[in-house]
Amino acid sequence: MPETPRILDTVDCPADLKGLDEAELATLAAEIRSQLVATTSATGGHLAPNLGVVELTLGIYRALDAPPDMVVFDVGHQAYVHKLLTGRRDDFDTLRTYGGISGFPKRSESPFDLYGSGHASDSLSIALGYALARDARGGDETVLAVIGDGSMTGGMAWEALNQIGQCQTRLVIVLNDNEMSISRNESAFEASLGRARMDPRYWGTREKIQRQLAGPKVGRGLVRLGTRVKDSFKHLLVPGTIFEELGIVSVGPLDGHDIGLVETAVKAAREMDGPVLIHAVTHKGRGFEPAEADQARFHGIGCFDPDTGECSQPADGAPPTYTSVFSQALIAEAAANPDIYAITAAMPAGTGLDKFQQAFPERFIDVGIAEGHAVGLAAGLAFGGKLPVFAVYSTFLQRGYDQLIGDVALQGAHVVFALDRAGFVGDDGPTHAGLYDLTYLRSVPTMRILAPSDEAELVSALHTALELDGPVALRYPRGSAEGVALPQSPETWEIGRARRIDVAAMKDTGRLDGSSTPLSSAPSKGNPDAAMKGTGRLDGSNLPVPTDSQSSTTVALLAVGHMVGRARKVAELLVARGIEASLWDMRWVKPIDEELIAAEARAGKLLVTLEENTIRGGFGSAVAEFLSAAGLTAPLLQIAVPDEFSVQGPIDTLLDEAGLAPQHIVERITERLEHSDQGAR
Amino acid sequence: MPETPRILDTVDCPADLKGLDEAELATLAAEIRSQLVATTSATGGHLAPNLGVVELTLGIYRALDAPPDMVVFDVGHQAYVHKLLTGRRDDFDTLRTYGGISGFPKRSESPFDLYGSGHASDSLSIALGYALARDARGGDETVLAVIGDGSMTGGMAWEALNQIGQCQTRLVIVLNDNEMSISRNESAFEASLGRARMDPRYWGTREKIQRQLAGPKVGRGLVRLGTRVKDSFKHLLVPGTIFEELGIVSVGPLDGHDIGLVETAVKAAREMDGPVLIHAVTHKGRGFEPAEADQARFHGIGCFDPDTGECSQPADGAPPTYTSVFSQALIAEAAANPDIYAITAAMPAGTGLDKFQQAFPERFIDVGIAEGHAVGLAAGLAFGGKLPVFAVYSTFLQRGYDQLIGDVALQGAHVVFALDRAGFVGDDGPTHAGLYDLTYLRSVPTMRILAPSDEAELVSALHTALELDGPVALRYPRGSAEGVALPQSPETWEIGRARRIDVAAMKDTGRLDGSSTPLSSAPSKGNPDAAMKGTGRLDGSNLPVPTDSQSSTTVALLAVGHMVGRARKVAELLVARGIEASLWDMRWVKPIDEELIAAEARAGKLLVTLEENTIRGGFGSAVAEFLSAAGLTAPLLQIAVPDEFSVQGPIDTLLDEAGLAPQHIVERITERLEHSDQGAR
Repeated sequence: MPETPRILDTVDCPADLKGLDEAELATLAAEIRSQLVATTSATGGHLAPNLGVVELTLGIYRALDAPPDMVVFDVGHQAYVHKLLTGRRDDFDTLRTYGGISGFPKRSESPFDLYGSGHASDSLSIALGYALARDARGGDETVLAVIGDGSMTGGMAWEALNQIGQCQTRLVIVLNDNEMSISRNESAFEASLGRARMDPRYWGTREKIQRQLAGPKVGRGLVRLGTRVKDSFKHLLVPGTIFEELGIVSVGPLDGHDIGLVETAVKAAREMDGPVLIHAVTHKGRGFEPAEADQARFHGIGCFDPDTGECSQPADGAPPTYTSVFSQALIAEAAANPDIYAITAAMPAGTGLDKFQQAFPERFIDVGIAEGHAVGLAAGLAFGGKLPVFAVYSTFLQRGYDQLIGDVALQGAHVVFALDRAGFVGDDGPTHAGLYDLTYLRSVPTMRILAPSDEAELVSALHTALELDGPVALRYPRGSAEGVALPQSPETWEIGRARRIDVAAMKDTGRLDGSSTPLSSAPSKGNPDAAMKGTGRLDGSNLPVPTDSQSSTTVALLAVGHMVGRARKVAELLVARGIEASLWDMRWVKPIDEELIAAEARAGKLLVTLEENTIRGGFGSAVAEFLSAAGLTAPLLQIAVPDEFSVQGPIDTLLDEAGLAPQHIVERITERLEHSDQGAR
Repeated sequence: MPETPRILDTVDCPADLKGLDEAELATLAAEIRSQLVATTSATGGHLAPNLGVVELTLGIYRALDAPPDMVVFDVGHQAYVHKLLTGRRDDFDTLRTYGGISGFPKRSESPFDLYGSGHASDSLSIALGYALARDARGGDETVLAVIGDGSMTGGMAWEALNQIGQCQTRLVIVLNDNEMSISRNESAFEASLGRARMDPRYWGTREKIQRQLAGPKVGRGLVRLGTRVKDSFKHLLVPGTIFEELGIVSVGPLDGHDIGLVETAVKAAREMDGPVLIHAVTHKGRGFEPAEADQARFHGIGCFDPDTGECSQPADGAPPTYTSVFSQALIAEAAANPDIYAITAAMPAGTGLDKFQQAFPERFIDVGIAEGHAVGLAAGLAFGGKLPVFAVYSTFLQRGYDQLIGDVALQGAHVVFALDRAGFVGDDGPTHAGLYDLTYLRSVPTMRILAPSDEAELVSALHTALELDGPVALRYPRGSAEGVALPQSPETWEIGRARRIDVAAMKDTGRLDGSSTPLSSAPSKGNPDAAMKGTGRLDGSNLPVPTDSQSSTTVALLAVGHMVGRARKVAELLVARGIEASLWDMRWVKPIDEELIAAEARAGKLLVTLEENTIRGGFGSAVAEFLSAAGLTAPLLQIAVPDEFSVQGPIDTLLDEAGLAPQHIVERITERLEHSDQGAR
């Protein structure tokens, strides 16, 4: 029996929604939910947020004429429904895969993607820009921004609201109030919304809105002529909301799962002659029981069973994630030091601080999506004698860059920044790439930067950061750690001292087969050399500069963090080619181990820096700066991420594509060694 | 006749205020105003804001017990009165001078300076941190933040308010509402405050507040027992304010020039068991007629006549400021291109956009102190077909770093960033230093960075930036330009091509006396070689790589922006020592002139990069990255600002102190040339 054709398959653009009746819309909504579950169960993705906005998105597009009307999504991980309705239905199974469609709006993907969002709270600024440009050309189209209540905790949204209220241009804001952002919001703003949510007197009904519309025609002309219609429209409003205070007409709350109601509200709002905010209440995970039951787990999820919602369990003995190792280590430190505070910007689960919260609720602070404030608050806590640790994704700390300089470093505040998801981030793609932190952190005077190369190192890096003073950052990658044993007790690293890794020992283990294996495509996780890493480890912190620095080795591999694993493979491949190499886990990106670098340079080696950070101003630059300052003219090969925006895909694929495949690095090294006489001197 | 002793001279700490009666306080306020005018007329400074907070500061400190009570100032340029009352009276004449006291609170200067503010909107985060730390140790002291209405347009303040409302800890916020930040605020929030300001029913009087206090004792214990007292206290409030919506008890507006009223309100507020906001209305410039008449000019002012308020006029023929040249050039461009928009973040006068506003009011946007939003808004305007120019101080764009990456560059939006006050900023000191932009801008993929070396170059740099696509930044220094003639029509620079400056021509002019003059202390303004610069200029944009690159010259000076002037002096000094040097005005920091650099490297020269930016990741790093990528091992000397926080003082002094004195640079070059054989190879 042939499958019943889907209504979804007849929708190629939003205009195709207009002919559907109520029953067909309900069927379409169900089809969209099935598609969302089917695709994300295979690709992973932000399932719960999208299940929550099915009707909202349908109602919005029913009300608009897009194009030319425009919808701008905040954050954008709730734009899957939008993608299904705007020409990406047939490619939807490639969501978030390498070469596939993005999990976020992306301007190069579709003219319907008006802004490639990723971080939170930007949509109002972008939408206002579109609206002002429209006004300038005398256009009449509607600009509509969809923003979640979580994004409203970000200051940028307030900056924009402030101006929107002031300039009173036509703009529709749909506040998608799902009562949580990524984890549950904790904010005064939420409380304000909550008062409105909980008072049924204020809930708009279709009848109320339809009664309005059945009265005097709500046309733009009418509104321009007087305020009477506008005033009667305001009967739907919650009086005294923050938005009204800012000069923005506010409608709702209304049921965001009622397509007709949303459609009615948006139609009315787009006729208004100024900014209107529609407060719609939705439920994350709606219509898929496992996601309704555990919204947080299904916010962003890997592959799962589409029937049960169960995720495949990691195999016994699989390495933990860096995040979980950090989480445990911080809890252990906090047990010993009552001054330690943990701060997150709406990411307790993502950063592993949810467990800290359970252990030390009174020392856990979730500031909302508010990284700038988080950094300032941390400084204040430090001034007050506390030891704050701000755990944050590398990409999101970009929002606190100014505060890093002014509130923390310039003040000499001892704040520890734990940067999770440093480097490539995989499926989320370029909006979330943590590829800039070594550069922006290095620019900050007095900042110290640690880059642990495995989970054992992470434990010691955190301990060291807590033992220091002033601003300290440590950065570690997304995903599974290397599978090495954790130390019984953490080390305190000597400041600016690298750790030598014994290349000869690697060769002796006989576990490595050198260039005959295409190592560039071998997974770096699962970790064949983990045991060796444990045994081959030397505590370099008290070592003198290596006595063999005048030996026949010709390459010094200076590797940072996550790249130490790949540098090992590079070393093995070099050894297999008969090229001697020393290998250093640098541990510190600021200050760097100048003594070591000077010794290796004076030994006449080719210095090769390896880092998972943009080539612009990262660790390689630190080495170059030192060589310049020391008056050393040494050959230097900087291996880093090229200066271009990355794509989405598995992290190892992205590393390989970025030129960080061991085989490729070896080729660059051998080429450089062969042509060393072509240098200027 | 001996002068009457001042009451001010008896105040060594805030406790000394407690014994003064009303008449003495009025006298003290007058003495403080005299001191403010006397000092700033000689040193320059933020006079008007401080004249506005004399009574406010006195009232606050009368009400508190400091220490242990704490006052945190937002921005901090209104902390002069605080400084006079907290032990810096006798040093006050050194305000903002090299080695003198800072124009901002500074933690190393006094234990009363709890936070070294400089940028806006941070104080609430810092104060909340102090308050939470106090709560943790069971402390009882009051934490009070003073924040201006202008700072409330910054998103970070909202992020903090949101959390303050949620966690309901004891915190007093004094909103210093002076109806303008640096220029007049334009925001919905201001409108909201304005409604309160203009309705006298809501103004609190001393009688009202005293009546409250005469009733049931407002003790912390009482408040904890019930809400009755709190509720009656709330009779003073403006109902429905944004602050109340966020869960913050709000008092006022009240007259911020009534010491007793402020004292009464703060005393009441500190007894409350949660956050309280006191809305105080003050007038910038109060009590000094010229400042009252022109608040904007006296916001931050150079030296002036303390009797008349007149500033000394620049001498006829003195060079214009970079800001004014930018302003004129942008107006000329906008006259020819109706898509050009100009955006400022509350700095229309500081960035020169006030004149743009007069010329094209409909294309001028002041977003308030909201740099993140400004960047997002610019992106939205660009998507809508406009060509936005965001003119902003280098230091303040740090607040928009994330948006530079995500909202602009990743989206390919053509937005022009005009970074004023790049490099050292002089009297304002380290909070305002524009020393990081080359690094943070360089980290952004697809960003292009232009650094004009004089005002003629600035005109062409702006023109070139407008002609390009994608994100483009140009940076130029604070203060007077070089005095060269402006071009009849701007050039369009070839992308990534440097401009050669003819060193031989310099020698031939005979106007330079080389090392016999201590050039390091010579003023770089006033500009003895301006005429030569005009004649010696070559349009390098179409030049092939110099044919003399294999000649006997041994040093290639690769200079950026403001450092080109000093590099000329370096070249002269080298020539005088018989060292041949080529000199390049690089024009582009991204992309750099790789062809030129490769040629100079292959010619065996010592490459010397010169930039007014942190050494960490700046232009010197760009050259190192290129050498590495090209497989060139050339001697490289990176001359840049050391990786430490700067101090305040004249820009030329700061440059010299940073090791950027021409004489010092020459010494480093000659030392490097002499020891070149000590390089690794």
